Amino acid sequence: MKILIYSGGMDSTVLLYLYKSEIIETLTFDYGSKHNQREAEFAKINSKVLKIKNTHISLDFIKKSFRSDLLKSGGEIPEGHYADLSMKRTVVPFRNGIMLSIATGYAESIGAESVLIANHFGDHAIYPDCRATFVQSMAEAMAYGTYENVKLLSPFVNMTKREIALMGNNIGVDFSKTYSCYKGGEKHCGKCGTCVERKEALLGFDPTEYE
Amino acid sequence: MKILIYSGGMDSTVLLYLYKSEIIETLTFDYGSKHNQREAEFAKINSKVLKIKNTHISLDFIKKSFRSDLLKSGGEIPEGHYADLSMKRTVVPFRNGIMLSIATGYAESIGAESVLIANHFGDHAIYPDCRATFVQSMAEAMAYGTYENVKLLSPFVNMTKREIALMGNNIGVDFSKTYSCYKGGEKHCGKCGTCVERKEALLGFDPTEYE
Repeated sequence: MKILIYSGGMDSTVLLYLYKSEIIETLTFDYGSKHNQREAEFAKINSKVLKIKNTHISLDFIKKSFRSDLLKSGGEIPEGHYADLSMKRTVVPFRNGIMLSIATGYAESIGAESVLIANHFGDHAIYPDCRATFVQSMAEAMAYGTYENVKLLSPFVNMTKREIALMGNNIGVDFSKTYSCYKGGEKHCGKCGTCVERKEALLGFDPTEYE
Repeated sequence: MKILIYSGGMDSTVLLYLYKSEIIETLTFDYGSKHNQREAEFAKINSKVLKIKNTHISLDFIKKSFRSDLLKSGGEIPEGHYADLSMKRTVVPFRNGIMLSIATGYAESIGAESVLIANHFGDHAIYPDCRATFVQSMAEAMAYGTYENVKLLSPFVNMTKREIALMGNNIGVDFSKTYSCYKGGEKHCGKCGTCVERKEALLGFDPTEYE
């Protein structure tokens, strides 16, 4: 059985639906970002619909000690394109490495054989811990570092967000029950990097109400 | 500058003294083990003596959700040799992977260029996340997954605990200000796996008062 690192955003929701029959539990991490709470609500809702246990893990040390404008403790979220250099300010250092390590230990604890994560090709521009080079090394570290050789599954690593959205649309994912905006408001702002790429990805079938 | 993953045990205390002029901060993790608190006191004391900042990071999700007899939530600590198979029950799954990932993100946050960890050859028998294969993959994942290519330094990976102890003795480390016992009592029990290997390592210059 598999566990899924599940934010409640578009990509991980498509992954949840693609692997729903094999996922034993979803893990939702709260690292103090401005939008964690809004995303996490949908992680809870979508897991519940599929009768999959959803576990929340609070990473208080990131909230307290890490520097990033994505965090509540950081500065303002920049507007513009997701792949712009200005978005570097929103990177939470080694976030995927941290989530994957915790998920690996948890998987070994409960006897799950692999960990699913929804990083994709569009993340590559800005986030070093989303790239294939990182994913390959991390997969080896996870396998070598556990008794049961826990596997890392990252099926979207070479897909664009548009391709993921089209796939999700084909299998009937309800994107109105996903959240992307880095600002974390009630409605999507429509202007921050993640809103811009959400719009591009969902073009033609976008149920989102933007501000 | 470097940061050190610092439990307050023998090995990481030797590492602290070996690299004291390059270490900007020590990170002490509390993951709910029976002996975390006793070790952590010495991590604090030894860091203070060297005027190095010591930061405690509490990993509540391990305390709550992981299965291991090393944890307060687990069963009794077995007696016998550290390398015995019975000690497998005390493994905290992927513990080093989790501590290294958090330290990596923290290093990138504060601008430190590398992370020191004191895993050694004697750990190999039981702990998969102490072996050279894990360390090499994890080092790559850390470098690929960060902007500044944070380095993993594991200088003891091919040394025995005895070799580390001899080295520490040569440079004047006060081993009475280190703690090993998995049972976490006021005095070292002298019977659990880590006490047995502590005795072997410090033979001839052991200042420890055993029960």
